[in-house]
Order: sequence, then structure tokens, then C-alpha cells
Amino acid sequence: MNKIITISREFGSGGRTIGKLLAERLHIPRYDEELIDMIASESGFAKEFISERSEDAPFSGWLSNAFSDRGFDGLSSQDYLWNIQRDIILEIAQKDDCVIIGRCAEYILKDRADLLKVFIYADIDKRTERIVKLYGERDISSKKRLKDKDKRRAAFYHIYTNIEWGKTQNYDLSLNSGTLGINQCVDILANLYENR
Amino acid sequence: MNKIITISREFGSGGRTIGKLLAERLHIPRYDEELIDMIASESGFAKEFISERSEDAPFSGWLSNAFSDRGFDGLSSQDYLWNIQRDIILEIAQKDDCVIIGRCAEYILKDRADLLKVFIYADIDKRTERIVKLYGERDISSKKRLKDKDKRRAAFYHIYTNIEWGKTQNYDLSLNSGTLGINQCVDILANLYENR
Repeated sequence: MNKIITISREFGSGGRTIGKLLAERLHIPRYDEELIDMIASESGFAKEFISERSEDAPFSGWLSNAFSDRGFDGLSSQDYLWNIQRDIILEIAQKDDCVIIGRCAEYILKDRADLLKVFIYADIDKRTERIVKLYGERDISSKKRLKDKDKRRAAFYHIYTNIEWGKTQNYDLSLNSGTLGINQCVDILANLYENR
Repeated sequence: MNKIITISREFGSGGRTIGKLLAERLHIPRYDEELIDMIASESGFAKEFISERSEDAPFSGWLSNAFSDRGFDGLSSQDYLWNIQRDIILEIAQKDDCVIIGRCAEYILKDRADLLKVFIYADIDKRTERIVKLYGERDISSKKRLKDKDKRRAAFYHIYTNIEWGKTQNYDLSLNSGTLGINQCVDILANLYENR
């Protein structure tokens, strides 16, 4: 079975950057936005729509949305995306060792790969600082956006996996990128991959 | 400020062993049962009583016990122990770098030391296997004992710190000793200490 590192992350924690640096260090592919491109070409949906719906529940009315815009086949657009995303992740996992960012990959690949399941988080002030710097937003709107995004991500996760997102016990390790720093997180994960 | 590694752990996860090996590797003291000896000589209570009451809430009626066996000074025996334990931990932290197992040390030492706050856990089957092997108990009674012990530890923690025990966000890192193995946990922590 291929060795696959899955990285779940709180929004603004730098989990995506850790995944990028880790994959570069290990010379293995990383799947992040690439997944959106693959889902787009498979599904026919626009990238913006996918990026909004492929791992977070919609802004408002998500329950009604996820469960009631169903066609004759009984699938909502979100269910349809979920199925495509799941198939793509299963296919990727067959190919090679890799790093996959988000998208419930650790759930989808359970028992299908030699997984290292990682959760990256940081306290809200560190995350706010990070997204203010990255996206140039104001502090207050950023904090609200962070909390909203985490809530939507947790909701999406729960709908499709029935598991609590971010709960320690669901991962092999959880790292606080705010106190450990991005580079130490990469070091820890690279060592674990190499010793596996 | 001294560099102190605090290890909170689920019962049966091997957190105590990780702390022991880590302290040996780093040539720094580790405080675990030693704390019980120190509390005993300071408080006058028997070791068994302390070991039972210094980090876990009592078996039954813990609420009434913790809050209503108060003397004229308004302190329950558990409060009295807590105060002595807190003072001893604060004193230890002044002396040298060290590893401290359990006993809310990461809460007591907040802002008083250069802390690395660690949580060690493992799934219930791995922990049961471990305590059956260590204490020769039967599977079923062990599982019940594990759950009971974790519940009492969480209750104690919450009474004295008002913080949720084992919640990812309260630590610098959380390690699954069941999937990573004891030795890899020790390696990760030793590297972090040395790079700090």
C-alpha cells in the first residue's frame, strides 16, 4: 500500500503550506488545488463552485441545500461532487505515495493506504494574523471568517463521514503550527514518513 | 525560564513510559510518582490517598466530596491537596529543565516556564491491550476501568482548571502512541526539546 499523508487543518493554520513544503522535501506529489481541477474536469462544474462546495458546507441553509436540491437520482449537487471527489481520491491513492490536503481524505482512504493522519491547528490570534497577512483583510472580519469557515468545514465533514472533525482521537498526531512553527511541523512529518 | 515538558495522557496510553524514556534520553529529571512522595511529606496524607486524589476525581459522589467535606477554612481535603501539589510543581519549575507527568502541570505552569505541552492518547483497544499486559487484568474489566479513569481525570481537570482535558487546542502537540509507537513519540519530543 502507498504511504499517504493526509493533512486536515483549521483555516489559517498554515496546514496547506506545511503540506506543500513537506511534499517538496519528500519529492512526492501533493494534491490540493490540483484536486479541484480534477473534480472540475470530471464533473463539469466551475472551479469556484467546487472550491466552495468540496469541503465546506455552504454559507447558509446548508442542510436544506445538501439534502433537498436532489434530482431524480436522489443526489444533491453536493452529493454528486462528493462522489466524484471520493473516486478521484481513491484513484490517486493507487498511484503513488503523496500528500493530500483536506477533503476528508483520511476518511475516504481508511484501510486503503498506509495513512499518516495529521491535524494542524493554531490559536485564533495566530490564525487571524496569518490570514490578515496573506489576504490583507481586517482583523475583525477575519476572526469572524475563520470561525465561520471552521464551522462549515466541521459541518461538511460530519455530513459525509459522521465523524467529528478535529477531534484528537481521529488522527495519528495533531500539531499546533502557531507554537511549534511551520518548519518544525514539516520536520516532524518528514521524519515520520521516512521512518515508516 | 526553564524548558519543561508536560505530558498529559489517557490512562493506558503509555504516556508515563514516554515521559520516563524522554527524561532519560535528555538527562533531565522527570516527576511522576516522585510528586506523590513530595506531596505526602508536605501534606501528611498517605501515599495511596494522594495517588487516588491528586489527579483524578474520586470514584463516586466526587462533586459532593470535592466541594462539601470542607473544614473551618473552607477547604476540602482535595482542595488542600491541590494547593500543596500546585506549590510543589511551581517550586520544581524554578529549579531546572524537567519532564512532568500529569497533575495539571501545564495549567499550573502557564506563563511560568518555557512549556512544551503534550497530550498522549491511543485507541481503546490498544490501551486495553497495554493494561491487560501490564496489570494482568481481564479485557472487559479493563475497558470499563479505562473509561472510568479517563472520566475521573477529565472531571478533576475541569474542577481545578475550568479547561477541557484532552482538547487538541490546549496542547502544542498530541500524539497517538498506539499508531506511532512509544519510541517515535520519544524521538519527536526529544527533537523538539533540543531545537527549542
